[in-house]
Amino acid sequence: MLLYDSDSRERETDLVAASQHVTHDSVRRMRRDGGGLICTTVPSRAWQRLGIPFLADLFSEARQRHPLLGELVPDDIPYDAKSAFAITINHRKTFTGVTDRDRALTISHFAGMVREALEYRGPDEEVRRTFGKLFRAPGHVQLLNAAEGLLSTRNGHTEMATALVSFAGLVPTATICEMMGDDGRALPKAQASRYAREAGLVFLEGSQVRAFWESRTGTGPVPGRKRGSAGVVQNGK
Amino acid sequence: MLLYDSDSRERETDLVAASQHVTHDSVRRMRRDGGGLICTTVPSRAWQRLGIPFLADLFSEARQRHPLLGELVPDDIPYDAKSAFAITINHRKTFTGVTDRDRALTISHFAGMVREALEYRGPDEEVRRTFGKLFRAPGHVQLLNAAEGLLSTRNGHTEMATALVSFAGLVPTATICEMMGDDGRALPKAQASRYAREAGLVFLEGSQVRAFWESRTGTGPVPGRKRGSAGVVQNGK
Repeated sequence: MLLYDSDSRERETDLVAASQHVTHDSVRRMRRDGGGLICTTVPSRAWQRLGIPFLADLFSEARQRHPLLGELVPDDIPYDAKSAFAITINHRKTFTGVTDRDRALTISHFAGMVREALEYRGPDEEVRRTFGKLFRAPGHVQLLNAAEGLLSTRNGHTEMATALVSFAGLVPTATICEMMGDDGRALPKAQASRYAREAGLVFLEGSQVRAFWESRTGTGPVPGRKRGSAGVVQNGK
Repeated sequence: MLLYDSDSRERETDLVAASQHVTHDSVRRMRRDGGGLICTTVPSRAWQRLGIPFLADLFSEARQRHPLLGELVPDDIPYDAKSAFAITINHRKTFTGVTDRDRALTISHFAGMVREALEYRGPDEEVRRTFGKLFRAPGHVQLLNAAEGLLSTRNGHTEMATALVSFAGLVPTATICEMMGDDGRALPKAQASRYAREAGLVFLEGSQVRAFWESRTGTGPVPGRKRGSAGVVQNGK
């Protein structure tokens, strides 16, 4: 599936796959035909329960000991208040962690971990310990923490892709990768749409996801947002 | 340039470029023909002076507040004691940070920052402040902190690529990207070597870099390392 956010946001199309079904072929397609960062989203109930921190928070908390991090404060992101970047991970059974097979192993097993975080009824500490038995950090797969409330809060690729996978009845984590053009910029929407047609993939725009979200959740537009123009508030990857 | 480490290490070939000369075409070649993570190395005098932390240290220091990070300890990397992963950055003039042009802007300006960190005679704090004026973190370019002493300490792609760029008389920071094969694994050495021939690029092996290093620095092999088999001690990206 391909997902374009909106003309008023990043103006980027991401390749999107349900993390639970990611194989080394999906990773290859993403790095070859996408070319951006291959990132895996985490729904809020899972990152909260597992305690997966945002990198921006980690960096901010560490500024006493590492004053440079106080200087690099990301307070001027042109399209968002805060990036969704969380920590990076590798499955412990990977070798270097970066090959298509290694990244697919990390991503598909991470989907299992999300399922466990959402379903397991025991103490949080046990789920965290399981996570630590299976994964190490830092690694080669970038996690993205989705905003609580998903599209009610934020209109990033992170939230939209997570919502779509969730609506499909799958474990609510998506793996996404931005599509790059030949001229050094993001792939234009028309070219991304043509790629989707030729590859037999669905092409969706943020406004369509937004409309579907509103019909399914019974929520209206985010306050302050004009109807019909998806993604003008609180954005970021 | 292409750089294969060794049969006894990651067994990976990286595309290598001097960071100061990275353009959007270099980034495109790396993501298309390499396919791994696009990372930029930092020589030790620069990361020490700028105070660029290793992610592994940041995560370890944050385990009180984020107990998950205590569980994800990377104590079982199959080819190394510690990864070279440092923080991720974007130049503040980038838009999303991920396009070829944005990453090239971040990388080439980072080379200028490394030069300043190595040459500027004023207080460290001023160099740090300049860094913070130009860059934000987290971002889309992964920095890799090279070991102090380079190949005297560690035989990773990070150290070898940094040493090569330095020997060439350029600002000692390299941008590297692992080459992936069609089968989900790292590109085999023979195929990488053929790619180099066809593209008119130099193909080097760790043992050659090692021999050159020893002849130029007058150092012998790392203690405990058998002569002629580069990269059997203290490894990692």
